[in-house]
This record gives sequence, C-alpha cells and structure tokens, in this order.
Amino acid sequence: MRILGIDPGLATMGWGVIEANGYKEKLVQYGALLTYPRDTFPTRLQSLLVGMRGLIQTFKPDEIAFEELFFSKNVTTGIQVGGARGVALVACREYTDRLFEYTPMQVKQAVVGYGGADKHQVQMMVKMLLGISEIPRPDDAADAVAIAICHAHAGAGREQFLIK
Amino acid sequence: MRILGIDPGLATMGWGVIEANGYKEKLVQYGALLTYPRDTFPTRLQSLLVGMRGLIQTFKPDEIAFEELFFSKNVTTGIQVGGARGVALVACREYTDRLFEYTPMQVKQAVVGYGGADKHQVQMMVKMLLGISEIPRPDDAADAVAIAICHAHAGAGREQFLIK
Repeated sequence: MRILGIDPGLATMGWGVIEANGYKEKLVQYGALLTYPRDTFPTRLQSLLVGMRGLIQTFKPDEIAFEELFFSKNVTTGIQVGGARGVALVACREYTDRLFEYTPMQVKQAVVGYGGADKHQVQMMVKMLLGISEIPRPDDAADAVAIAICHAHAGAGREQFLIK
Repeated sequence: MRILGIDPGLATMGWGVIEANGYKEKLVQYGALLTYPRDTFPTRLQSLLVGMRGLIQTFKPDEIAFEELFFSKNVTTGIQVGGARGVALVACREYTDRLFEYTPMQVKQAVVGYGGADKHQVQMMVKMLLGISEIPRPDDAADAVAIAICHAHAGAGREQFLIK
C-alpha cells in the first residue's frame, strides 16, 4: 500500500511517500511544497492546491495521512495554517476519501515507541526504519515521512483515525 | 461593477451579489452554501469548493469581498472555519486576484455609519439601501450582502483592503 504523509503548513507543506507491506516500509520520495510570504495568502493557497494535486497525480497514494494541527495561543496563525490544511484536504478529497489524521504524540508513539520522543529521536527512527543513509530534509518532510510510517503501523486499527 | 460578498463559515457560507454603480447598489441575488455535520470535514470542504465555483461561474463577479475571521477563544473552531475560508479563497483565486477583506467593524461602519451597530441595524440598512422588501435570510446571507455593500462604498480606497 502506498501512503502519502502530509505535515500541513502555509510556508512549508512537508510530504513523504512510502510503500508499506505489513510492518516493512520503503521510502518512495519526500519533499516540501513551499510558498512565499511575498505572495498574497490566496495566491499561496492556490500554489498549495496545484502542488498537492501534482503530488497526488504523481504518486497515486492509496491512503493519505495528515498531522493534526494544534495551536495553544496564536489564533491568527491557526486560521492561516487552517486555511492551508483545508486546501490540502480538499485537493486530497477530490481524489480519495481515505484520509486519516494523527496527533504529534501518536506519531511519536508509533515511530519511536514513546509519545514524548523529541524531533531528533523521531528522525533517527525514520532513517533506521526506512534503511536510508540521510535524514529527509527539511524537517517538515521528515515529519511527513514519520506520519506516513505512523499510518502504516496503525494497521487494521487505522479506521478509527479517519478524518471525521 | 458586480461584487460578490462572502461571509465564510463551515456549516453556512453566506453569499450575496450586488451590482454597484458609484454609491447606488442593486441586489442581484443572495443565499448560503450549506454543509452537513454528518459529512466528514474533507467532504464538507469539497462541497464548499464546488459550491463556490458554481457561484463564481454563475455570477462572474468583478471583485469579491470577504469578512475577516476573528476568534478570541476556540482555536479548534478557528482551524475548521479557517479551512472553510481557505477553500473559498482558493476557489475565488482560481478566477480572479481581486479579493478583498473587511473586519466586521468596517462593514458596520460602511453600511450603518457606526462601527458598533448591531446585527438588526445592519440588516435594516441593507434592506433600505437595496430597496428590497425583506431582509435576506439566513443571517449569513444578509451579512454577505452587507460585506458587498461595504466594498462598494470603499470606492477608490478599496485597494488597501486587498487580501495580502
């Protein structure tokens, strides 16, 4: 099964594609969609929509996993990143309804085995699990790959993580 | 000039179309795109994307004005409504870059002449300015019409309200 992981953001939308067979995963590709602060917010959203469609058409994932957004303080940022995530979701929904969502803690738990793991531990495990020689860059791409691995490890229990 | 006003929301996206000539406005049509809580969030976003495209293709507005989102407390709601607004913006951006944004206070100031006006005063002025016999329903549609009127009244100064 091919899984696309997405770490949603307005300036940087990390993505990672893996091929999962049971508990064995293989990295297909990763990267980040970038948008520029010099562009208007609607233009940046459009760029994300076009980029997401390109990813989906290129990799034709069976299922897509997102990281849940959490904001404790900055509501304006929440609205903006919420917009970017909404656009990513709608691009995915045009293609499939197999859309899933995990909290950062669930991703850490699934990849490292410990929900309080730090970024570096997650990245090292991503590297080890996929048997690759370098940690994916930028960080958002590594996060997206970790989200895809988390989804692969959820196995049959994944249905409970469908986005409602 | 034909103006589409949008009051963004996930469950109810109010819209109103007016034809503006100087300080004189004529109502073309209004309504609301509705989405249902029984559907998933991505499905609701998709329904908004399709609905917005339909509106734009039907009315072919010259410019589109949005109400700015404000949230003081509920960040989860902010992320969801931010998603709905993002999808509306991206549908509009596919069609034009003439996208504007006003705060609720600016809308009240422009329509009633007083930024602290209440909902009822705004609705009565919308009715009077457009010479219509009934207040547009639902409230989100009336708000959207008020946003379109606000944009019409901004005149040459409207460029400062372009969404950045």
